[in-house]
Amino acid sequence: MRNPQLNKNGELQHLLSLDGLPLSILGAILDIAAPFTEVAEREVKKLPLLRGKSVFNLFFENSTRTRTTFEIAAKRLSADVINLNVSTSSTKKGETLLDTIDNLCAMQADMFVVRHESSGAPYLIADHLHATGRNHIHVINAGDGRHAHPTQGLLDMYTIRHFKKEFHNLIVVVVGDVLHSRVARSQLAALTTLGVPEVRVVGPRTLLPTDVERLGVRVCHDMNEGLRDADVVMMLRLQNERMNGALLPSPQEYFKVWGLTPEKLALAKPNAIVMHPGPMNRGVEIDSTVADGGQAVILPQVTFGIAVRMAVMSMLAGN
Amino acid sequence: MRNPQLNKNGELQHLLSLDGLPLSILGAILDIAAPFTEVAEREVKKLPLLRGKSVFNLFFENSTRTRTTFEIAAKRLSADVINLNVSTSSTKKGETLLDTIDNLCAMQADMFVVRHESSGAPYLIADHLHATGRNHIHVINAGDGRHAHPTQGLLDMYTIRHFKKEFHNLIVVVVGDVLHSRVARSQLAALTTLGVPEVRVVGPRTLLPTDVERLGVRVCHDMNEGLRDADVVMMLRLQNERMNGALLPSPQEYFKVWGLTPEKLALAKPNAIVMHPGPMNRGVEIDSTVADGGQAVILPQVTFGIAVRMAVMSMLAGN
Amino acid sequence: MRNPQLNKNGELQHLLSLDGLPLSILGAILDIAAPFTEVAEREVKKLPLLRGKSVFNLFFENSTRTRTTFEIAAKRLSADVINLNVSTSSTKKGETLLDTIDNLCAMQADMFVVRHESSGAPYLIADHLHATGRNHIHVINAGDGRHAHPTQGLLDMYTIRHFKKEFHNLIVVVVGDVLHSRVARSQLAALTTLGVPEVRVVGPRTLLPTDVERLGVRVCHDMNEGLRDADVVMMLRLQNERMNGALLPSPQEYFKVWGLTPEKLALAKPNAIVMHPGPMNRGVEIDSTVADGGQAVILPQVTFGIAVRMAVMSMLAGN
Repeated sequence: MRNPQLNKNGELQHLLSLDGLPLSILGAILDIAAPFTEVAEREVKKLPLLRGKSVFNLFFENSTRTRTTFEIAAKRLSADVINLNVSTSSTKKGETLLDTIDNLCAMQADMFVVRHESSGAPYLIADHLHATGRNHIHVINAGDGRHAHPTQGLLDMYTIRHFKKEFHNLIVVVVGDVLHSRVARSQLAALTTLGVPEVRVVGPRTLLPTDVERLGVRVCHDMNEGLRDADVVMMLRLQNERMNGALLPSPQEYFKVWGLTPEKLALAKPNAIVMHPGPMNRGVEIDSTVADGGQAVILPQVTFGIAVRMAVMSMLAGN
Repeated sequence: MRNPQLNKNGELQHLLSLDGLPLSILGAILDIAAPFTEVAEREVKKLPLLRGKSVFNLFFENSTRTRTTFEIAAKRLSADVINLNVSTSSTKKGETLLDTIDNLCAMQADMFVVRHESSGAPYLIADHLHATGRNHIHVINAGDGRHAHPTQGLLDMYTIRHFKKEFHNLIVVVVGDVLHSRVARSQLAALTTLGVPEVRVVGPRTLLPTDVERLGVRVCHDMNEGLRDADVVMMLRLQNERMNGALLPSPQEYFKVWGLTPEKLALAKPNAIVMHPGPMNRGVEIDSTVADGGQAVILPQVTFGIAVRMAVMSMLAGN
Repeated sequence: MRNPQLNKNGELQHLLSLDGLPLSILGAILDIAAPFTEVAEREVKKLPLLRGKSVFNLFFENSTRTRTTFEIAAKRLSADVINLNVSTSSTKKGETLLDTIDNLCAMQADMFVVRHESSGAPYLIADHLHATGRNHIHVINAGDGRHAHPTQGLLDMYTIRHFKKEFHNLIVVVVGDVLHSRVARSQLAALTTLGVPEVRVVGPRTLLPTDVERLGVRVCHDMNEGLRDADVVMMLRLQNERMNGALLPSPQEYFKVWGLTPEKLALAKPNAIVMHPGPMNRGVEIDSTVADGGQAVILPQVTFGIAVRMAVMSMLAGN
């Protein structure tokens, strides 16, 4: 079966998911991202790699933060960026997703950054572009339903590599609502590909997928056991809509059991790093002392996120 | 009487309507648009013609699609583009339309792209600029009420010329809700100016203007009769708000009588082209087989639309 | 106590308020703004002073007009501008203001233009940047609660200097809802700093602060007395929410007593200028004959506003 993310030369054609992305490409993205972190520290944070290209931020689901990171990345590469908040637009007028895509392609789009509430929407777009022979147009998944958020996963891997150098000797723990998290799905896929020997997922039974052990990860329903000797602790955001629903008693009780406090963090290795995809719910999944403490690398994650997105965009534009 | 669209040298000053636009200027826009279609296929889709100019997309009525086409056109000409969704802005604060315009002029606007729910609003603005001696500022009508949508009409003419080469030997048919359509009004004006010998409008009595024959067009209340031997079939979008109102029984019944199916299209000339301004209601005014078929030129219309808007903007900036 | 607006060399670090801004810096901004008014009249309205810088328009309170002026100023300085309407964004997701700021800093922001409904929010951000050692990032207050709107005050001072040359011989009158006006607060601070010998505030008792005389200004509850022999008449906008509340009988009665008509204006000096921060309520605080008359300098205010904002941004970027 054709890998929809690769072109016929095996190069990156679209970034849809970290699941199924070959190690060689995953590693290449991280390598290419490194010099882009330096661009961001220059006086003139601008490179001409996407000059004259039209990048469409196609957000069928609102997300100012994610849209902003892609907008910055594209503008620093000198692209023309068009923001489309599609929920308030043509779909209301009865147009199909693929008709919208066809129209934007006809306006000579070069790249689509797609956020969609339905899992698989970016795949549908990529398949359609392939079927209609428009292989010069690229798709980046900026989060689809519960499925994937690959640039988040990539920036997480970049962050781990930056602070831990190697993957082959790590214990990495993912804590929280794995069941509903596209971020977690992307993280687990990448950690597996990069050869992390021990990955643990930690959380209440109601928020862990039933089949998660099939992914080769260890499941812990005990926070202390899960954190013990960890090198990397990746906290997940607890979505507001879960907090008072059937799955959880209350944010306070969640924090008591699953919130990351200095005491719990002390069970991990002394030099363990703490990550969070943001935006944080302080006092729900993470204590402020930890969030602002010396082991947190949450803001470097954001910085690396711009560099990783610039890397993906410039790779796609070059292929 | 002064033609508000022309300056004292007879050059294009504003683009407000295709009704009253001289053939020489209409033809010049189409000629100038041609090389811009090639720009869009380059690696670097960028020309410096509007560099340092400030283009304001003044949308008093929301339309992401139309705004996007103008935003792309202006950015490819290197303009600074400012998007103003005015419905959510100063008008709510009690400011008059002309006070808003005066303010934006004072910010050294060079060009206004205006979409407004009231017919005539762009004229009001153009008259005001004239009366106050600000002849270096240009207005493009991006759709006003039921009145006009001249860039849509221009891209339609560009599309017809591209596929049919000449206008003087054509039978052109406009099908649907002509009564409420600013697109149709612009199309009919341009087709007349360009010398199309036979223009037909086809649709239910409730959706055709009563005085349409005065425009020199032939009225058909029978779809088969209307389509017979046509060279160009221009479908109109059926607005959602008409579908369940007093004017029409239901979308299904509309489709049965007025929807363009392969069977009905077979009545036209074998090489007839099918056009639609988008967004399409598949299964209402047009069948998917036709929309995706070999005779449809709906996506080239979109591509030509960018080129035509670049042509209009660069002409205005040069005059 | 440290002046949060100045860096350790006494240069402008943030623009938060005109209250406490030294005369030398206030004068420098006005001087630097002058050549920027000429840029706006060029064919190519573009300077490379902020090229490669990322300017974030952080609007926690919606204001299309103010956002537009900053967006234009930044784009004419070649910055990359990112518009964030934060009310519809992360704050809804429970993120704190300072977490939002930390995140944007991690994306290598160079400048924040902040509008916030709470007085003091820009100070909070500036303090946080100082406390965390991020002194290369600058904050411009674009209006906070009832507290300050310093760029509006600066453009008003620029306008007065432009038309009156000197400040030391002027009678300046501020008319209207001083109590709720951040604009008035910024004006009064600047007029005092610039050495205007007589400043009067005029308005109904319910709309003047009780302690206003402490600011060294003269309070008048009589419009005729207030306007007599004035050189500059600065009208304030009457917020819609005041018009039918407990503080005022009705817009019509307000206009009768406090609205600026030609008759009342005749009490001022013959060459007095009339200013308004916009958007105007014609027939409420100002008569159309005055607003459109020869003494009004309301549109020059807008033009100078772009230049003043370019001056502030380029000064900050240079320090």
